[in-house]
Amino acid sequence: MGSKSDLPVMKTAGVILDQMKIKYETHIVSAHRTPKLLQKCIAEWEVLGVKIIIAGAGGAAHLPGMLASFSILPVIGVPIKSSAMNGLDALLSIAQMPRGVPVATVAVDNSTNAALLAAQILGTNDDPQGLSIRKKVSQYKKTMSVKVLRDKNALSSLGVNQFLRKQK
Amino acid sequence: MGSKSDLPVMKTAGVILDQMKIKYETHIVSAHRTPKLLQKCIAEWEVLGVKIIIAGAGGAAHLPGMLASFSILPVIGVPIKSSAMNGLDALLSIAQMPRGVPVATVAVDNSTNAALLAAQILGTNDDPQGLSIRKKVSQYKKTMSVKVLRDKNALSSLGVNQFLRKQK
Amino acid sequence: MGSKSDLPVMKTAGVILDQMKIKYETHIVSAHRTPKLLQKCIAEWEVLGVKIIIAGAGGAAHLPGMLASFSILPVIGVPIKSSAMNGLDALLSIAQMPRGVPVATVAVDNSTNAALLAAQILGTNDDPQGLSIRKKVSQYKKTMSVKVLRDKNALSSLGVNQFLRKQK
Amino acid sequence: MGSKSDLPVMKTAGVILDQMKIKYETHIVSAHRTPKLLQKCIAEWEVLGVKIIIAGAGGAAHLPGMLASFSILPVIGVPIKSSAMNGLDALLSIAQMPRGVPVATVAVDNSTNAALLAAQILGTNDDPQGLSIRKKVSQYKKTMSVKVLRDKNALSSLGVNQFLRKQK
Amino acid sequence: MGSKSDLPVMKTAGVILDQMKIKYETHIVSAHRTPKLLQKCIAEWEVLGVKIIIAGAGGAAHLPGMLASFSILPVIGVPIKSSAMNGLDALLSIAQMPRGVPVATVAVDNSTNAALLAAQILGTNDDPQGLSIRKKVSQYKKTMSVKVLRDKNALSSLGVNQFLRKQK
Amino acid sequence: MGSKSDLPVMKTAGVILDQMKIKYETHIVSAHRTPKLLQKCIAEWEVLGVKIIIAGAGGAAHLPGMLASFSILPVIGVPIKSSAMNGLDALLSIAQMPRGVPVATVAVDNSTNAALLAAQILGTNDDPQGLSIRKKVSQYKKTMSVKVLRDKNALSSLGVNQFLRKQK
Amino acid sequence: MGSKSDLPVMKTAGVILDQMKIKYETHIVSAHRTPKLLQKCIAEWEVLGVKIIIAGAGGAAHLPGMLASFSILPVIGVPIKSSAMNGLDALLSIAQMPRGVPVATVAVDNSTNAALLAAQILGTNDDPQGLSIRKKVSQYKKTMSVKVLRDKNALSSLGVNQFLRKQK
Amino acid sequence: MGSKSDLPVMKTAGVILDQMKIKYETHIVSAHRTPKLLQKCIAEWEVLGVKIIIAGAGGAAHLPGMLASFSILPVIGVPIKSSAMNGLDALLSIAQMPRGVPVATVAVDNSTNAALLAAQILGTNDDPQGLSIRKKVSQYKKTMSVKVLRDKNALSSLGVNQFLRKQK
Repeated sequence: MGSKSDLPVMKTAGVILDQMKIKYETHIVSAHRTPKLLQKCIAEWEVLGVKIIIAGAGGAAHLPGMLASFSILPVIGVPIKSSAMNGLDALLSIAQMPRGVPVATVAVDNSTNAALLAAQILGTNDDPQGLSIRKKVSQYKKTMSVKVLRDKNALSSLGVNQFLRKQK
Repeated sequence: MGSKSDLPVMKTAGVILDQMKIKYETHIVSAHRTPKLLQKCIAEWEVLGVKIIIAGAGGAAHLPGMLASFSILPVIGVPIKSSAMNGLDALLSIAQMPRGVPVATVAVDNSTNAALLAAQILGTNDDPQGLSIRKKVSQYKKTMSVKVLRDKNALSSLGVNQFLRKQK
Repeated sequence: MGSKSDLPVMKTAGVILDQMKIKYETHIVSAHRTPKLLQKCIAEWEVLGVKIIIAGAGGAAHLPGMLASFSILPVIGVPIKSSAMNGLDALLSIAQMPRGVPVATVAVDNSTNAALLAAQILGTNDDPQGLSIRKKVSQYKKTMSVKVLRDKNALSSLGVNQFLRKQK
Repeated sequence: MGSKSDLPVMKTAGVILDQMKIKYETHIVSAHRTPKLLQKCIAEWEVLGVKIIIAGAGGAAHLPGMLASFSILPVIGVPIKSSAMNGLDALLSIAQMPRGVPVATVAVDNSTNAALLAAQILGTNDDPQGLSIRKKVSQYKKTMSVKVLRDKNALSSLGVNQFLRKQK
Repeated sequence: MGSKSDLPVMKTAGVILDQMKIKYETHIVSAHRTPKLLQKCIAEWEVLGVKIIIAGAGGAAHLPGMLASFSILPVIGVPIKSSAMNGLDALLSIAQMPRGVPVATVAVDNSTNAALLAAQILGTNDDPQGLSIRKKVSQYKKTMSVKVLRDKNALSSLGVNQFLRKQK
Repeated sequence: MGSKSDLPVMKTAGVILDQMKIKYETHIVSAHRTPKLLQKCIAEWEVLGVKIIIAGAGGAAHLPGMLASFSILPVIGVPIKSSAMNGLDALLSIAQMPRGVPVATVAVDNSTNAALLAAQILGTNDDPQGLSIRKKVSQYKKTMSVKVLRDKNALSSLGVNQFLRKQK
Repeated sequence: MGSKSDLPVMKTAGVILDQMKIKYETHIVSAHRTPKLLQKCIAEWEVLGVKIIIAGAGGAAHLPGMLASFSILPVIGVPIKSSAMNGLDALLSIAQMPRGVPVATVAVDNSTNAALLAAQILGTNDDPQGLSIRKKVSQYKKTMSVKVLRDKNALSSLGVNQFLRKQK
Repeated sequence: MGSKSDLPVMKTAGVILDQMKIKYETHIVSAHRTPKLLQKCIAEWEVLGVKIIIAGAGGAAHLPGMLASFSILPVIGVPIKSSAMNGLDALLSIAQMPRGVPVATVAVDNSTNAALLAAQILGTNDDPQGLSIRKKVSQYKKTMSVKVLRDKNALSSLGVNQFLRKQK
């Protein structure tokens, strides 16, 4: 991410990656404030065998796009909502990349989905790690659907008012 | 894609995938008009070992999101501009997915980037095919930068007016 | 609705339906997290003689559209405002459905209107139940206009400041 | 509709209603230019047993909302794109109705969906006409899915380029 | 205004009209909930010699436009910001009126300007009342500019920090 | 207006004013390119007894607001659509004026409504000219409603297809 | 700035200018409320040798554009977010200036960047003051990048949770 | 600029700079396709004594921001309208830069204003070149106002219709 102010949004990605037992590092590097460091980091990461980059940024939000320019690794971009524009500025700055330099954009402030997408990408690999991640993604999706089902059943048996009271 | 009217936009993805020597199939399946076929196709694709799905859609643009719901494969979504709303409706419908079901969104009408992102994803694999694709992505990026450099030099030597005349 | 977090917005629909003495069930089923359950539910509902589906969803908001894809029942969609985009994303995702698969979209967060629209639809029927509902909708509209009239009169007799004080 | 300039968009609704063998009348009445006529027409329509009103309007687009104010019939609103604002003005003016006065909003310029929604509404009735319409809606949906399937197969057997050539 | 919830925004107009010694009445009449009352009120107002109508409304915001449809009096519309859409819906619904039925739209939530515009309109009259209002508008503008000048001088002599402290 | 490029949009206002027998002058003065001339013109116009100013502008569209700043005459603003932003920039720049300096904003490119609003304003005057204008506005509205009625009848008797053929 | 309510946003510019040892004055002058004072101030400032004008404004936000109209000094505009429209109105009103009258627009509420841009402009001068400012801008950029680097290192050594705890 | 497709928009800047007798070079360098070349160019330009950078870009439009990151020279950004989003994406991507890295943003597609702003910036210098440019900017503004005045007079003497006929 480009600034420590993005950390509260981005840290949820780490929770998901931990669940999936995917190794990751969390870095603060700014496209605008440390453009040369950015380039150095990417070079290092490519040497270290990093496979995917997740980048969160708000406002003009150039970080994901610049990472995509300097690297051939897939870059996942998380638009972060700032005080003006409701996140529309970051969404457009990240999604509307020109031909030749894609960024895989997810929903505003949705670093959970960035991590899941990363897991799905690693799960396309046919080696044991890929298989293991694919299982975990499958498991994650099942858990989600079980939760919805449990809510559905609780709502049916409790009724709206009691169900809502129990949520608090 | 969900309709044959999306084909002129989406076919460019095929050009890129051909260049990268990545096998692919092109299908018309609609989330709204053939929801059950959609589900059947995904099941078949997963059995066949498909690794990535690229989905283009306009307007309410549910196709990429529904594919992502039914599958654990990474789904790349291409928002397609329709006559109203300038593509904003499709961009928001594809990018703003809820927690747990990511779609990797690229720019409006930019199926080139969808194909490149797919290549970058396949390139994260350390087997020979992954290495070969990584090289081709690298090569693609080099070709792009060479073209820009050639334009830069031509513009410098010809001047604006003559350069523009030559483009026609 | 697709998630229990939508319940505080959606429960008002139930209040209206109760007033109109229209039977209904409240379910949590997610287009994205439980796509197969969705399909199963629709099949069941059609067998049970359900006549109208009201679906609330935020963000990419595919639930109403997917229900409309799987069923020939009229689907009423309630866009729900989420933290980013002020509800514009859900409104566009629900309203901008392609030719052939309509969703009857109401205002952002306005589940009251979804329930009223359902009542108006059931009121198009010429059997006794239809007539009874039509009367209740008529009554509801009269009550609304009486309230406005009462406010008009209170404001005229009390003046702005005293009227406002009385509201608190 | 409010003006004869809306007719080219709205006439498609008639094509669908004809297919479904649903009787309808097409009228030009303006909320802004003939507000009293509007009210008179609604009164007449209610006496004549009209069951649903479809209203198309552009710009400030008050027609659907005013019809909904004067009547207890369900009103389906079609936002029509005008030269400025890409249809966003009409969409918001029609969808964002206050509590108590719903308009069933469909996509911009999509009068096809307005007619289908009307058919689905009439199909909620359990009398023979309702049943017959329900069958026709079912048939319509099947035809749509068959067309998509036919396109899918044609694309598979012909390949992208030959398929596109055949479309012209 | 169409609802008592608009009163906190609209009451400021009364403050300005009082300052200008312009007689006015404040009414709650809803285009959607009391459409017939609306028409009756306009007829009464025209008989009573009302000269200008100021109408505030949020969301689909049809009140100003419908008043303009039923009357030949100039109508001033105040878009009121509601919970979704940041006031954009009301602004477009009020401003984008079709040819033939103008509404004089002012800024979102700015009932002050609606009252001033009303005063400026009455001030176009060459009779003694018109002259008196014109003077008051002139005076109002002078007072405004004097306040800005006073702030300018206070800021110059106190400096930023002390000036801000004094504001609290 | 601020530039001769606005004339094709603004000239329609003259047609309406001619119909209403309201005297007017058409000027090109730019807030940005001739700010001092602007001020001089306003001073002259106030001396000459001008009663209303209609100002059309596109993009940042400061002309109406600056005229309103320099004068106590009511200013009617016409947002003009330019190549980017669909007219939204001009609409916001004209409508969103601060407290104390109203501009009566009409729809994008709708100079007809600006002229009608001017007529309605002059019609608030109780002298013979005011009465005469009021009658003409009334007449204009009647003509409009007669045209709609005529279209309604023609459509009813001819049917959709023949009606559309006759329009060409 | 046009109003004392803009001071909390604009005062940050002063902090930066102080750091850069650039002399400046802070004034409240309104394009709309004191248009003549505006013109007088510009004349004075040009005589006094002022080199750059920074202007902050919200809503219709004409101040920067009108300053640019009256002067040949470069004008830097800061759009200020007001209660409606999320700052989009001010951004469009300031940025979308017509050919011939540029305003150098920075991000919404970002008066820091306005001051830095002013410093960069003064730094284009080759005299000793220009050189000194250029050094200070360089220093500022270095400090920024050092801070990012320090955050990066702290995050690496502390981990996400402890790092976040330390921020509070 | 980042691509030769931006040249038709950007070349107008050259016309203005020629008029002002300001030396300039026109380059094609892409932030996304040639990120390293970008950095090299900036280093060279700073050595060569370049004083201002004008950068035009569309879509995600990172070029101006990345130039501003790598350099302490003032960067002027021209948002270029592409096929989707009406230029809003480029405007937000260029204007919404984070604290510390300003880009002087001008109107969409308005490279004329970028060149004029550059001239105004160079004109802040007190050396002979600065004085000469200031005069030329002054002259440019006078010519503009003379043209407006000439149009004003022509329109007054010819009337609307004849004036319009003469424009063709």
